Amino acid sequence: MTTTMNRLFAIDPWQVTTTQFNPATKRLQESLTAIGNGYMGMRGNFEEGYSGDTLQGTYLGGVWFPDKTRVGWWKNGYPEYFGKAINAPSFIGIGITINGERVDLATSQFRDFSLTLDLHQGLLTRRFTIEAPEAAVQFTFRRFVSNVIRQAALIEVTAKVLHGQAHLQFNATLDGNVTNEDSNYDERFWVPLQEDANAGSIQLETRENPFGVPRFTVLLQQGLRLNGQPIAGERTTTSGTLSEALAVDLAAGESMTLEKDVIVVTSRDVAETAQPAASATLLGQLQTNSFAQTLAAHTAVWAERWAQSDVEISGDDAAQQGIRFNIAQLFMTYYGEDKRLNVGPKGFTGEKYGGATYWDTEAYVVPMYLAVTPPSVTKALLQYRHDQLPGAYHNAQQQGLAGALFPMVTFNGIECHNEWEITFEELHRNSAVAFAIYQYTAYTGDESYVNTAGIEVLVGIARFWADRVHFSQRAGKYMIHGVTGPNEYENNVNNNWYTNLMASWVLEYTLARLPKADPTITGKLAVTDAEQAHWQDIIDRMYFPTDDKLGIFVQNDTFLDKDLRPASTIPADQRPLNQHWSWDRILRSPFIKQADVLQGIYFLNDRFTREQKERNFDFYEPLTVHESSLSASIHAILAAELGKADKAVELYARTARLDLDNYNNDTADGLHITSMTGSWLAIVQGFAGMRYDHDRLRFDPFLPKKWQRYSFAINYRGRVIAVSVSDHTTLTLRAGEPLDVWVNGERRHLVKEEGHA
Amino acid sequence: MTTTMNRLFAIDPWQVTTTQFNPATKRLQESLTAIGNGYMGMRGNFEEGYSGDTLQGTYLGGVWFPDKTRVGWWKNGYPEYFGKAINAPSFIGIGITINGERVDLATSQFRDFSLTLDLHQGLLTRRFTIEAPEAAVQFTFRRFVSNVIRQAALIEVTAKVLHGQAHLQFNATLDGNVTNEDSNYDERFWVPLQEDANAGSIQLETRENPFGVPRFTVLLQQGLRLNGQPIAGERTTTSGTLSEALAVDLAAGESMTLEKDVIVVTSRDVAETAQPAASATLLGQLQTNSFAQTLAAHTAVWAERWAQSDVEISGDDAAQQGIRFNIAQLFMTYYGEDKRLNVGPKGFTGEKYGGATYWDTEAYVVPMYLAVTPPSVTKALLQYRHDQLPGAYHNAQQQGLAGALFPMVTFNGIECHNEWEITFEELHRNSAVAFAIYQYTAYTGDESYVNTAGIEVLVGIARFWADRVHFSQRAGKYMIHGVTGPNEYENNVNNNWYTNLMASWVLEYTLARLPKADPTITGKLAVTDAEQAHWQDIIDRMYFPTDDKLGIFVQNDTFLDKDLRPASTIPADQRPLNQHWSWDRILRSPFIKQADVLQGIYFLNDRFTREQKERNFDFYEPLTVHESSLSASIHAILAAELGKADKAVELYARTARLDLDNYNNDTADGLHITSMTGSWLAIVQGFAGMRYDHDRLRFDPFLPKKWQRYSFAINYRGRVIAVSVSDHTTLTLRAGEPLDVWVNGERRHLVKEEGHA
Repeated sequence: MTTTMNRLFAIDPWQVTTTQFNPATKRLQESLTAIGNGYMGMRGNFEEGYSGDTLQGTYLGGVWFPDKTRVGWWKNGYPEYFGKAINAPSFIGIGITINGERVDLATSQFRDFSLTLDLHQGLLTRRFTIEAPEAAVQFTFRRFVSNVIRQAALIEVTAKVLHGQAHLQFNATLDGNVTNEDSNYDERFWVPLQEDANAGSIQLETRENPFGVPRFTVLLQQGLRLNGQPIAGERTTTSGTLSEALAVDLAAGESMTLEKDVIVVTSRDVAETAQPAASATLLGQLQTNSFAQTLAAHTAVWAERWAQSDVEISGDDAAQQGIRFNIAQLFMTYYGEDKRLNVGPKGFTGEKYGGATYWDTEAYVVPMYLAVTPPSVTKALLQYRHDQLPGAYHNAQQQGLAGALFPMVTFNGIECHNEWEITFEELHRNSAVAFAIYQYTAYTGDESYVNTAGIEVLVGIARFWADRVHFSQRAGKYMIHGVTGPNEYENNVNNNWYTNLMASWVLEYTLARLPKADPTITGKLAVTDAEQAHWQDIIDRMYFPTDDKLGIFVQNDTFLDKDLRPASTIPADQRPLNQHWSWDRILRSPFIKQADVLQGIYFLNDRFTREQKERNFDFYEPLTVHESSLSASIHAILAAELGKADKAVELYARTARLDLDNYNNDTADGLHITSMTGSWLAIVQGFAGMRYDHDRLRFDPFLPKKWQRYSFAINYRGRVIAVSVSDHTTLTLRAGEPLDVWVNGERRHLVKEEGHA
Repeated sequence: MTTTMNRLFAIDPWQVTTTQFNPATKRLQESLTAIGNGYMGMRGNFEEGYSGDTLQGTYLGGVWFPDKTRVGWWKNGYPEYFGKAINAPSFIGIGITINGERVDLATSQFRDFSLTLDLHQGLLTRRFTIEAPEAAVQFTFRRFVSNVIRQAALIEVTAKVLHGQAHLQFNATLDGNVTNEDSNYDERFWVPLQEDANAGSIQLETRENPFGVPRFTVLLQQGLRLNGQPIAGERTTTSGTLSEALAVDLAAGESMTLEKDVIVVTSRDVAETAQPAASATLLGQLQTNSFAQTLAAHTAVWAERWAQSDVEISGDDAAQQGIRFNIAQLFMTYYGEDKRLNVGPKGFTGEKYGGATYWDTEAYVVPMYLAVTPPSVTKALLQYRHDQLPGAYHNAQQQGLAGALFPMVTFNGIECHNEWEITFEELHRNSAVAFAIYQYTAYTGDESYVNTAGIEVLVGIARFWADRVHFSQRAGKYMIHGVTGPNEYENNVNNNWYTNLMASWVLEYTLARLPKADPTITGKLAVTDAEQAHWQDIIDRMYFPTDDKLGIFVQNDTFLDKDLRPASTIPADQRPLNQHWSWDRILRSPFIKQADVLQGIYFLNDRFTREQKERNFDFYEPLTVHESSLSASIHAILAAELGKADKAVELYARTARLDLDNYNNDTADGLHITSMTGSWLAIVQGFAGMRYDHDRLRFDPFLPKKWQRYSFAINYRGRVIAVSVSDHTTLTLRAGEPLDVWVNGERRHLVKEEGHA
């Protein structure tokens, strides 16, 4: 239940801001004020340090470590290692003493605290006044990671003496002696290589691993500026650290600003020996501009993003903040800059789930990113999977299967999750990878990808499914036994309807695309006529569990024999189930963790009648506990389509402020990044009813009761379109060629107005 | 495939003997020459030490350690710790040097090696001649663990100089610095408490654990005798060890015998402070007799055992050795002496599976032990479970269920296995515990147990099942969803026929026994009329998957939709499946790990028609891969009953010499103790067709083609009966009152012959 008691931050349309400081919720605060730029990011840790409970975390995209797989009982085919995002060397540190006393909000006397994350561009500002012996000093910190020079982090602290005399000592540090909180036995992943006091840099390498996974070398370099002028403090180094000290004396009324510019380069981009020079060059480039100039350029980059993605809500300030928070955090995590990277479930905000790639990307991020980022961003997500095709073939072979099996969890394409019921059996993820190709093509109209790299991915996945189905002599049908569907509260079931549906769809789509694809590529793929005939036979004779009496698609064989009862019968103190019930009890219960049948109806929305959608929704929604943060949005979208407005709004509310209101009571570990798309999907595909299949962009909007208005911008095939929904719906073409769009079934011809760029 | 190439030991009716020594198969040799006395035991390690590859192992019954549970992903209800049998302080050591050269068969020159395990009483004898500089010395070792004073181990080494002069130095050691080979990070489970050079003893304690599991203190004391006379060598101690050195000079033709008597007491029986005195007393008692006298008394105890259990086979010497080896190893592991103990899968022969208790005991050991040991032995196995009822109630609560759930794996009644599909779902084990009570009662005719302690166990299990079933509205039947049956190659399936059958049987049997049980006890159990009516309703409306067209009981719902094909279609190089296929591939295949439906038909043998048995056997046997060593015997028994003699013999052969021929290529880790009953069951219940339900002991024997004759002894209700099968069947009453027994359907009245005791 959401109450204002759970809110650390005040409601504001563009700021996540508070004047409260509470040590008991420090970790939550750190998660909520995390920032990133797609290249790197960090939790809202304090620059001057903090001796109370804290989760210190800095993360570099793609810098990971293969930890030995731990299982109770080994099974053939399990991955050897579990990839984890490691806590990277920390670079925000600026230790401060006033007249010899350490500034530490765990122990110091302070007042007038404020903390603000500006969602416009991810600028984190913090202010407080220390009451020290003989002086009161106000500190203002600002920091951001730059979207202009992405290897750059800029941190600034302004000190103003309110009364007394202050001898301020600053110690700017680079610290490679970090660990992961969830690692074994305090193991250190980083091995110091060198420290260069002259250059102000440290260089470290990830430690050796027995798996042949490449190691990473990183170099961090800092440059200080005092009141805008470059300055070198007194530098000392130890193994893996650099400290740079300087002191300033201020009288009452005086102030100073110390800026710490940091460059981080990694061996993903720059070879180890070239790193010092590359870093020095970037630092030089950075320091040709002031903090303010860099911030302005960075903000301008962000302004472009908001222009084609912002969502405005009137009448629900909490929701307004929520949607902007979600969009900002998503874009801070990934904006297509590096197609070797993907959208980790916690982005740059925490250690859990290792920062790896999950099917969440294809299923939940792609549908949103298609509309709010340039096509190249989503295309980068598709290329990520294409480039990991070799790993996918390996994963399938681990299970004795043909074709390509994209992993459940990965950094490099090799599977690294180690539960058989997920790793070996939650196979629907493979179809999501294919479906993202379809969605990209359908949304952008760009067929070049699917005809080249895309067809390689499709054929690999199709061959996998063709090998994985079996023919049931008894039923005279093809079946898929032993799977786990999107609803992970069923394991190892037979004929999960969704899995069969999407497997069949993959074969169908691949057959349809083959004749259109680049013949050089299809020539190499060599899908024979016999193979295609077999795929067609699977499509024609695939088994789908249905119940004619109820008029529904059955989630999996024998589901209807369960003790069927709605989720409302679960006592409140046993929710969530996954924290109270033993696993067997959950599995045999009728309760559904996340959209499963309904996920299929959502994806292949244009293939089902309204009656089918409604019967299935009415049957499955009451059974669904939505204990995955990915789930409610899908139901919200279908509820909206079916005219169940109140239900749609209720489900949307579960997604709107998941982290801001600490809905699942676990945001202290990091934000639920991949879930954040849900609130956007619920608004745009749900409330506004956006659909785009068959080259027809259309909307069927309704206005939630408590809202006065909502509006959003999307890009579509070279256009930027603003949609505004109040008691009527207005569409504005902000950029691009004229376009026909359907609203509530009626065609509107959009033309850009005079005066727009 | 069994070939003589796999055989380390020559065929012999009563000895496991070899003259070959092969370092490459040392571990296998050690497993096969393990000895025990129900209290303690050890692998066939060499007294003088061995510097090559070896698995050193000494095990004390009931002395275990709770190791923190390791899983990849935690689930609610998982046990906190995994109990493991720990390698106990080693006491067989007698280091030897000849003229300064260490005797070590890994490095020394030697000849005329022989090693013999005498199955009459578990005496292990070894001989070899060392060619040392200046002398050739023949050593003969004998050792056994006593069934007269069970805390005692007796080791004797005779040295005879064949030529030259030999200065022999002996060092008898007690060594507490041992580890488990499979433990983490070289952790030591033992903490030394004290060493007493005067007494010749060491005392150690298992180290602390965070689970509140009691720790164990053990004291080991040695006493040497030289040529029969007590002698004290030069004793030195270090932390956790004691050494006792003495030297003897011998000329050619001279010999000497050094005897090392060891007493081991544990805090299971003797409080820590009382251990020195208790040990001294036992050592004194032991040394009132010579080695030969103790061995003779020990052998006499064994002779009694063989008298009511021996099996003779003419025409198949390998099978003769196999069955005696199996019986001997079983009796060395457990003979009912301590009802706090049970039959661990590896007994005292290895570390794997932790030495804990499994359902194997009830399902496979009880049926044999009822016939070959006094009733008190099997009763002790039942009492073990009764005494662990509190743990069973705890286990059920961990899963939110009522009643008692006996664990899959345990030392103390608390579950300690940690795979959800087994721990939470392989529930049929609970019914086996109940069925053992029925078997004991049916075999012995003694109702006193089931009417007192037994009814408490039955009601606990019945209440569990009554809570665990659910009512399917759609089917109008009670069902059991989400289980794993005896066939572990299906996980989390619905309506495993065997599980439903035995759950229903438990309710039925408990209802039948309640009115006959001790009213004081049933009063406390307070099974109400409503409760009993509900149990009856479950019995009346339990769902059983059947297929009328095939005329079979279906293993679980939707089994028949699989890609059904016989196990003979599996390429040989992919067997066993569990070493080649990924888990998902195994689960969706039709292949059956061990008897599942057929286990039910075996247990409730008197409830099915011959036609039912045959149809199910003909359907399931071809699908069964028998990749559990427990499986083939059940099929052999049914094959025999159905007149499929060749098939019965083929299946029996898979059980006959599993370890002696290293059939599964893993006996180096330890013997498959609980599987050993299979060969006895296949002969007696299979070939000889022994049945005993409804108070009618009967046989339907056939003679395997290649055998001339087989005979066996059983006890039955105060009688000892010898059964001999050749071209005719002879029954002889060796002891006890007259009895009617049926052979091939004809009644025979047995009367003890004149001259028998």
